[in-house]
Amino acid sequence: MHQIFTVATQQAKQSLDITARVAEIVKRSGVSRGLCHVMVLHSTAAVILNENDDPDVGVDVLTALDRAVPDHAGWLHDRVDNNAHAHIKAAILGASELMPIEGGRLQLGTWQGIMLMEFDGPRRRKVAVRILTEE
Amino acid sequence: MHQIFTVATQQAKQSLDITARVAEIVKRSGVSRGLCHVMVLHSTAAVILNENDDPDVGVDVLTALDRAVPDHAGWLHDRVDNNAHAHIKAAILGASELMPIEGGRLQLGTWQGIMLMEFDGPRRRKVAVRILTEE
Amino acid sequence: MHQIFTVATQQAKQSLDITARVAEIVKRSGVSRGLCHVMVLHSTAAVILNENDDPDVGVDVLTALDRAVPDHAGWLHDRVDNNAHAHIKAAILGASELMPIEGGRLQLGTWQGIMLMEFDGPRRRKVAVRILTEE
Repeated sequence: MHQIFTVATQQAKQSLDITARVAEIVKRSGVSRGLCHVMVLHSTAAVILNENDDPDVGVDVLTALDRAVPDHAGWLHDRVDNNAHAHIKAAILGASELMPIEGGRLQLGTWQGIMLMEFDGPRRRKVAVRILTEE
Repeated sequence: MHQIFTVATQQAKQSLDITARVAEIVKRSGVSRGLCHVMVLHSTAAVILNENDDPDVGVDVLTALDRAVPDHAGWLHDRVDNNAHAHIKAAILGASELMPIEGGRLQLGTWQGIMLMEFDGPRRRKVAVRILTEE
Repeated sequence: MHQIFTVATQQAKQSLDITARVAEIVKRSGVSRGLCHVMVLHSTAAVILNENDDPDVGVDVLTALDRAVPDHAGWLHDRVDNNAHAHIKAAILGASELMPIEGGRLQLGTWQGIMLMEFDGPRRRKVAVRILTEE
Protein backbone atom coordinates (compact mmCIF):
# COMPACT_ATOMS: atom_id res chain seq x y z
CA MET A 1 0.00 0.00 0.00
CA HIS A 2 1.46 3.32 -1.02
CA GLN A 3 0.14 6.74 -1.85
CA ILE A 4 1.38 10.26 -2.52
CA PHE A 5 -0.61 13.26 -1.38
CA THR A 6 0.06 16.96 -1.85
CA VAL A 7 0.14 19.71 0.73
CA ALA A 8 -0.02 23.36 -0.30
CA THR A 9 1.92 25.44 2.22
CA GLN A 10 1.05 29.12 2.66
CA GLN A 11 4.13 30.62 4.28
CA ALA A 12 7.91 30.71 3.81
CA LYS A 13 8.32 28.81 7.09
CA GLN A 14 5.43 26.83 8.45
CA SER A 15 4.50 23.80 10.51
CA LEU A 16 1.46 21.82 9.28
CA ASP A 17 -0.31 18.96 11.00
CA ILE A 18 -0.73 16.11 8.49
CA THR A 19 -1.73 13.41 11.00
CA ALA A 20 -5.34 13.16 9.79
CA ARG A 21 -4.31 12.67 6.16
CA VAL A 22 -1.88 9.89 7.05
CA ALA A 23 -4.38 8.27 9.45
CA GLU A 24 -6.99 8.20 6.68
CA ILE A 25 -4.58 6.35 4.35
CA VAL A 26 -3.81 3.83 7.11
CA LYS A 27 -7.53 3.30 7.70
CA ARG A 28 -8.31 2.79 4.02
CA SER A 29 -5.41 0.31 3.69
CA GLY A 30 -7.16 -2.09 6.05
CA VAL A 31 -3.79 -3.04 7.54
CA SER A 32 -4.13 -3.90 11.22
CA ARG A 33 -0.48 -4.32 12.17
CA GLY A 34 2.70 -3.03 10.58
CA LEU A 35 4.68 0.13 10.03
CA CYS A 36 3.85 3.40 8.27
CA HIS A 37 6.55 5.45 6.52
CA VAL A 38 5.86 9.14 5.78
CA MET A 39 8.39 11.02 3.65
CA VAL A 40 8.43 14.44 2.04
CA LEU A 41 9.87 14.23 -1.50
CA HIS A 42 11.76 17.51 -1.26
CA SER A 43 15.04 18.71 0.23
CA THR A 44 13.85 22.01 1.77
CA ALA A 45 11.07 20.55 3.94
CA ALA A 46 10.95 17.88 6.65
CA VAL A 47 8.61 15.51 8.49
CA ILE A 48 8.68 15.27 12.29
CA LEU A 49 6.68 13.64 15.06
CA ASN A 50 5.80 16.03 17.86
CA GLU A 51 2.96 17.75 19.66
CA ASN A 52 0.42 19.49 17.49
CA ASP A 53 -2.25 20.04 20.13
CA ASP A 54 -0.57 23.38 20.80
CA PRO A 55 0.42 24.66 17.33
CA ASP A 56 3.03 26.89 19.01
CA VAL A 57 5.28 23.84 19.46
CA GLY A 58 5.80 23.81 15.71
CA VAL A 59 6.39 27.58 15.72
CA ASP A 60 9.01 27.15 18.45
CA VAL A 61 10.81 24.47 16.40
CA LEU A 62 10.91 26.88 13.44
CA THR A 63 12.22 29.69 15.67
CA ALA A 64 14.90 27.51 17.27
CA LEU A 65 16.15 26.46 13.84
CA ASP A 66 16.12 30.09 12.67
CA ARG A 67 18.34 31.00 15.61
CA ALA A 68 20.75 28.08 15.09
CA VAL A 69 20.83 28.33 11.27
CA PRO A 70 20.14 31.96 10.31
CA ASP A 71 19.05 32.81 6.77
CA HIS A 72 21.79 34.00 4.42
CA ALA A 73 24.59 33.69 6.97
CA GLY A 74 27.28 33.20 4.38
CA TRP A 75 26.06 29.82 3.07
CA LEU A 76 27.66 28.79 -0.23
CA HIS A 77 24.46 27.40 -1.76
CA ASP A 78 22.87 30.87 -1.48
CA ARG A 79 24.87 31.82 -4.59
CA VAL A 80 22.89 29.24 -6.54
CA ASP A 81 19.47 29.24 -4.98
CA ASN A 82 19.35 31.57 -1.97
CA ASN A 83 17.67 28.89 0.17
CA ALA A 84 20.64 27.18 1.84
CA HIS A 85 19.11 27.66 5.31
CA ALA A 86 16.11 25.58 4.19
CA HIS A 87 18.31 22.69 3.01
CA ILE A 88 20.31 22.72 6.26
CA LYS A 89 17.21 22.71 8.46
CA ALA A 90 15.64 19.92 6.39
CA ALA A 91 18.81 17.83 6.82
CA ILE A 92 18.75 18.36 10.59
CA LEU A 93 15.09 17.33 11.04
CA GLY A 94 15.05 14.63 8.37
CA ALA A 95 12.78 13.87 5.43
CA SER A 96 10.82 10.99 6.92
CA GLU A 97 9.34 9.32 9.97
CA LEU A 98 8.44 5.68 10.57
CA MET A 99 5.79 4.68 13.07
CA PRO A 100 3.96 1.50 14.11
CA ILE A 101 0.44 0.54 13.12
CA GLU A 102 -1.42 -1.42 15.78
CA GLY A 103 -5.12 -2.37 15.81
CA GLY A 104 -5.56 -0.70 12.43
CA ARG A 105 -4.37 2.69 13.68
CA LEU A 106 -1.14 4.65 13.95
CA GLN A 107 0.48 3.84 17.28
CA LEU A 108 1.50 7.30 18.47
CA GLY A 109 1.93 8.74 21.94
CA THR A 110 -0.85 10.95 23.33
CA TRP A 111 1.06 14.09 22.37
CA GLN A 112 2.58 12.88 19.12
CA GLY A 113 1.34 14.01 15.74
CA ILE A 114 2.88 14.08 12.27
CA MET A 115 4.02 17.50 11.14
CA LEU A 116 5.24 18.73 7.78
CA MET A 117 7.87 21.42 8.30
CA GLU A 118 8.11 23.94 5.45
CA PHE A 119 11.34 25.93 5.18
CA ASP A 120 11.10 27.37 1.66
CA GLY A 121 7.47 28.01 0.93
CA PRO A 122 4.89 28.65 -0.10
CA ARG A 123 4.94 25.55 -2.32
CA ARG A 124 3.08 22.40 -3.20
CA ARG A 125 4.80 19.55 -1.34
CA LYS A 126 4.50 15.85 -2.17
CA VAL A 127 4.31 13.45 0.75
CA ALA A 128 4.81 9.70 0.10
CA VAL A 129 3.09 7.26 2.49
CA ARG A 130 4.03 3.59 2.43
CA ILE A 131 2.54 0.90 4.65
CA LEU A 132 4.34 -2.32 5.52
CA THR A 133 2.17 -5.19 6.70
CA GLU A 134 3.33 -7.50 9.45
CA GLU A 135 1.79 -10.94 9.48
CA MET B 1 6.56 -9.14 16.86
CA HIS B 2 5.98 -6.01 18.87
CA GLN B 3 6.38 -4.98 22.47
CA ILE B 4 6.25 -1.87 24.63
CA PHE B 5 8.57 -1.49 27.60
CA THR B 6 8.82 1.29 30.17
CA VAL B 7 11.87 3.24 31.27
CA ALA B 8 11.81 5.30 34.46
CA THR B 9 14.12 8.28 34.05
CA GLN B 10 15.62 9.91 37.15
CA GLN B 11 16.67 13.36 35.96
CA ALA B 12 15.24 16.32 34.06
CA LYS B 13 17.75 15.71 31.26
CA GLN B 14 19.34 12.31 30.91
CA SER B 15 20.79 9.85 28.45
CA LEU B 16 19.99 6.16 29.11
CA ASP B 17 21.40 3.12 27.37
CA ILE B 18 18.49 0.86 26.33
CA THR B 19 20.46 -1.43 24.00
CA ALA B 20 20.25 -4.49 26.28
CA ARG B 21 16.47 -4.24 26.59
CA VAL B 22 15.98 -4.00 22.84
CA ALA B 23 18.52 -6.79 22.20
CA GLU B 24 16.60 -9.07 24.58
CA ILE B 25 13.35 -8.47 22.66
CA VAL B 26 15.13 -9.25 19.38
CA LYS B 27 16.55 -12.46 20.86
CA ARG B 28 13.19 -13.64 22.21
CA SER B 29 11.54 -12.91 18.84
CA GLY B 30 13.64 -15.62 17.19
CA VAL B 31 13.91 -13.45 14.07
CA SER B 32 17.23 -14.01 12.33
CA ARG B 33 17.02 -11.36 9.63
CA GLY B 34 15.00 -8.18 9.37
CA LEU B 35 14.70 -4.70 10.81
CA CYS B 36 14.04 -3.45 14.33
CA HIS B 37 12.17 -0.19 14.97
CA VAL B 38 12.54 1.51 18.36
CA MET B 39 10.31 4.51 19.11
CA VAL B 40 9.60 6.55 22.21
CA LEU B 41 5.86 7.29 22.47
CA HIS B 42 6.37 10.83 23.79
CA SER B 43 7.16 14.24 22.32
CA THR B 44 9.69 15.46 24.92
CA ALA B 45 12.12 12.52 24.64
CA ALA B 46 14.04 10.96 21.76
CA VAL B 47 15.83 7.79 20.64
CA ILE B 48 19.31 7.96 19.09
CA LEU B 49 22.06 5.58 18.03
CA ASN B 50 25.47 6.54 19.34
CA GLU B 51 28.32 5.50 21.59
CA ASN B 52 27.39 4.44 25.09
CA ASP B 53 30.71 2.90 26.06
CA ASP B 54 31.67 6.32 27.38
CA PRO B 55 28.47 7.65 29.00
CA ASP B 56 29.86 11.18 28.62
CA VAL B 57 28.95 11.09 24.92
CA GLY B 58 25.29 11.22 25.92
CA VAL B 59 26.03 14.02 28.39
CA ASP B 60 27.79 15.98 25.64
CA VAL B 61 24.75 15.59 23.35
CA LEU B 62 22.53 16.96 26.14
CA THR B 63 24.93 19.88 26.72
CA ALA B 64 25.19 20.74 23.02
CA LEU B 65 21.39 20.83 22.72
CA ASP B 66 21.16 22.99 25.86
CA ARG B 67 23.53 25.47 24.25
CA ALA B 68 21.71 25.51 20.90
CA VAL B 69 18.18 25.47 22.40
CA PRO B 70 18.33 27.13 25.83
CA ASP B 71 15.51 26.55 28.32
CA HIS B 72 12.87 29.28 28.50
CA ALA B 73 14.44 31.44 25.79
CA GLY B 74 11.16 33.07 24.82
CA TRP B 75 9.50 29.92 23.43
CA LEU B 76 5.73 30.32 22.91
CA HIS B 77 4.82 26.86 24.22
CA ASP B 78 6.32 27.77 27.61
CA ARG B 79 3.11 29.74 28.28
CA VAL B 80 1.20 26.43 28.16
CA ASP B 81 3.57 23.85 29.55
CA ASN B 82 6.97 25.43 30.30
CA ASN B 83 8.79 22.59 28.50
CA ALA B 84 9.17 23.96 24.95
CA HIS B 85 12.93 23.29 24.96
CA ALA B 86 12.20 19.59 25.49
CA HIS B 87 9.83 19.44 22.49
CA ILE B 88 12.32 21.25 20.24
CA LYS B 89 15.21 18.96 21.22
CA ALA B 90 13.04 15.86 20.74
CA ALA B 91 12.09 17.08 17.25
CA ILE B 92 15.75 17.62 16.35
CA LEU B 93 16.92 14.16 17.47
CA GLY B 94 13.78 12.29 16.41
CA ALA B 95 11.47 9.83 18.14
CA SER B 96 12.72 6.62 16.57
CA GLU B 97 15.57 4.64 15.07
CA LEU B 98 15.51 1.73 12.65
CA MET B 99 18.32 -0.82 12.51
CA PRO B 100 19.03 -4.13 10.81
CA ILE B 101 18.81 -7.57 12.40
CA GLU B 102 21.33 -10.06 11.06
CA GLY B 103 22.14 -13.51 12.41
CA GLY B 104 19.49 -13.07 15.10
CA ARG B 105 21.15 -9.96 16.52
CA LEU B 106 20.99 -6.20 16.09
CA GLN B 107 23.46 -5.19 13.40
CA LEU B 108 25.13 -2.17 14.99
CA GLY B 109 28.60 -0.72 14.62
CA THR B 110 31.18 -1.43 17.34
CA TRP B 111 30.50 1.93 18.95
CA GLN B 112 26.77 2.15 18.34
CA GLY B 113 24.22 1.67 21.08
CA ILE B 114 20.58 2.69 21.47
CA MET B 115 20.01 5.63 23.79
CA LEU B 116 16.83 7.11 25.20
CA MET B 117 17.27 10.86 25.54
CA GLU B 118 15.11 12.40 28.29
CA PHE B 119 14.47 16.14 28.07
CA ASP B 120 11.58 16.62 30.52
CA GLY B 121 12.03 14.10 33.30
CA PRO B 122 11.92 12.41 35.58
CA ARG B 123 9.09 10.40 34.01
CA ARG B 124 8.03 6.94 33.01
CA ARG B 125 8.64 6.64 29.25
CA LYS B 126 7.06 4.04 26.96
CA VAL B 127 9.27 2.63 24.22
CA ALA B 128 7.65 0.64 21.36
CA VAL B 129 9.76 -2.04 19.67
CA ARG B 130 8.59 -3.58 16.42
CA ILE B 131 10.44 -6.25 14.47
CA LEU B 132 10.00 -6.80 10.75
CA THR B 133 11.01 -10.20 9.40
CA GLU B 134 12.70 -10.53 6.07
CA GLU B 135 12.35 -13.85 4.31
CA MET C 1 18.38 -8.52 0.39
CA HIS C 2 21.15 -6.91 2.35
CA GLN C 3 24.65 -5.70 1.65
CA ILE C 4 27.43 -3.74 3.29
CA PHE C 5 29.68 -1.48 1.24
CA THR C 6 32.66 0.62 2.27
CA VAL C 7 33.34 4.29 1.63
CA ALA C 8 36.82 5.74 2.08
CA THR C 9 36.52 9.36 3.16
CA GLN C 10 39.38 11.76 2.44
CA GLN C 11 38.81 14.63 4.85
CA ALA C 12 38.12 15.22 8.55
CA LYS C 13 34.70 16.61 7.66
CA GLN C 14 33.15 15.73 4.35
CA SER C 15 29.88 15.17 2.56
CA LEU C 16 29.84 12.30 0.02
CA ASP C 17 27.11 11.40 -2.44
CA ILE C 18 26.39 7.64 -2.13
CA THR C 19 23.14 7.62 -4.16
CA ALA C 20 24.61 5.71 -7.10
CA ARG C 21 25.98 2.93 -4.92
CA VAL C 22 22.66 2.44 -3.15
CA ALA C 23 20.71 2.66 -6.43
CA GLU C 24 22.92 -0.08 -7.89
CA ILE C 25 22.13 -2.41 -4.96
CA VAL C 26 18.41 -1.70 -5.38
CA LYS C 27 18.66 -2.47 -9.09
CA ARG C 28 20.52 -5.75 -8.56
CA SER C 29 18.00 -6.82 -5.90
CA GLY C 30 15.26 -6.95 -8.53
CA VAL C 31 12.78 -5.63 -5.96
CA SER C 32 10.14 -3.50 -7.65
CA ARG C 33 8.30 -2.18 -4.61
CA GLY C 34 9.35 -1.83 -1.00
CA LEU C 35 11.59 0.18 1.26
CA CYS C 36 15.35 0.69 1.33
CA HIS C 37 17.22 1.28 4.61
CA VAL C 38 20.69 2.86 4.48
CA MET C 39 22.70 3.02 7.73
CA VAL C 40 26.27 3.96 8.55
CA LEU C 41 27.69 1.51 11.12
CA HIS C 42 29.63 4.18 13.02
CA SER C 43 28.83 6.82 15.65
CA THR C 44 30.88 9.73 14.23
CA ALA C 45 29.28 9.79 10.76
CA ALA C 46 25.70 10.13 9.53
CA VAL C 47 23.42 9.49 6.54
CA ILE C 48 21.08 12.20 5.26
CA LEU C 49 18.79 12.81 2.31
CA ASN C 50 19.33 16.17 0.64
CA GLU C 51 20.40 17.90 -2.51
CA ASN C 52 23.68 16.75 -4.01
CA ASP C 53 23.33 18.45 -7.38
CA ASP C 54 25.12 21.42 -5.84
CA PRO C 55 27.80 19.84 -3.60
CA ASP C 56 27.91 23.09 -1.61
CA VAL C 57 24.68 22.09 0.12
CA GLY C 58 26.64 19.36 1.93
CA VAL C 59 29.40 21.84 2.74
CA ASP C 60 26.83 24.25 4.19
CA VAL C 61 25.40 21.49 6.40
CA LEU C 62 28.92 20.78 7.72
CA THR C 63 29.52 24.50 8.34
CA ALA C 64 26.20 24.99 10.14
CA LEU C 65 26.95 22.05 12.44
CA ASP C 66 30.46 23.42 13.09
CA ARG C 67 28.91 26.71 14.18
CA ALA C 68 26.28 25.09 16.40
CA VAL C 69 28.60 22.40 17.83
CA PRO C 70 32.18 23.77 17.78
CA ASP C 71 35.13 21.38 18.06
CA HIS C 72 36.64 21.02 21.53
CA ALA C 73 34.20 23.40 23.22
CA GLY C 74 34.55 21.79 26.62
CA TRP C 75 32.97 18.43 25.70
CA LEU C 76 33.59 15.70 28.29
CA HIS C 77 34.23 12.93 25.74
CA ASP C 78 37.22 14.91 24.39
CA ARG C 79 39.16 13.65 27.42
CA VAL C 80 38.78 10.11 26.07
CA ASP C 81 38.83 10.46 22.32
CA ASN C 82 38.99 14.15 21.32
CA ASN C 83 36.14 13.68 18.82
CA ALA C 84 33.07 14.58 20.88
CA HIS C 85 31.91 17.11 18.27
CA ALA C 86 31.72 14.28 15.72
CA HIS C 87 29.51 12.13 17.99
CA ILE C 88 27.18 15.05 18.73
CA LYS C 89 26.78 15.96 15.05
CA ALA C 90 26.17 12.31 14.12
CA ALA C 91 23.45 12.09 16.80
CA ILE C 92 21.76 15.22 15.45
CA LEU C 93 21.68 14.06 11.81
CA GLY C 94 21.08 10.37 12.55
CA ALA C 95 22.75 7.17 11.38
CA SER C 96 20.18 6.04 8.83
CA GLU C 97 17.55 6.94 6.28
CA LEU C 98 14.62 4.92 4.99
CA MET C 99 13.14 5.54 1.55
CA PRO C 100 10.56 3.91 -0.73
CA ILE C 101 11.31 1.74 -3.74
CA GLU C 102 8.78 2.09 -6.54
CA GLY C 103 9.00 0.67 -10.07
CA GLY C 104 12.35 -0.96 -9.19
CA ARG C 105 13.95 2.37 -8.29
CA LEU C 106 14.48 4.54 -5.23
CA GLN C 107 11.54 6.92 -4.92
CA LEU C 108 13.30 10.20 -4.17
CA GLY C 109 12.36 13.78 -4.91
CA THR C 110 14.04 15.54 -7.83
CA TRP C 111 16.54 17.22 -5.49
CA GLN C 112 17.00 14.39 -3.02
CA GLY C 113 20.13 12.27 -2.91
CA ILE C 114 21.71 10.08 -0.23
CA MET C 115 24.72 11.63 1.46
CA LEU C 116 27.25 10.15 3.86
CA MET C 117 28.35 12.83 6.31
CA GLU C 118 31.86 12.30 7.71
CA PHE C 119 32.70 14.10 10.95
CA ASP C 120 35.87 12.31 12.07
CA GLY C 121 37.78 11.28 8.96
CA PRO C 122 39.53 10.31 6.95
CA ARG C 123 38.33 6.74 7.57
CA ARG C 124 36.86 3.70 5.93
CA ARG C 125 33.12 3.73 6.69
CA LYS C 126 30.78 0.75 6.44
CA VAL C 127 27.30 1.40 5.10
CA ALA C 128 24.60 -1.28 5.53
CA VAL C 129 21.82 -1.41 2.94
CA ARG C 130 18.74 -3.52 3.57
CA ILE C 131 15.79 -3.85 1.23
CA LEU C 132 12.30 -4.79 2.36
CA THR C 133 9.98 -6.20 -0.27
CA GLU C 134 6.35 -5.30 -0.33
CA GLU C 135 4.03 -7.77 -1.97
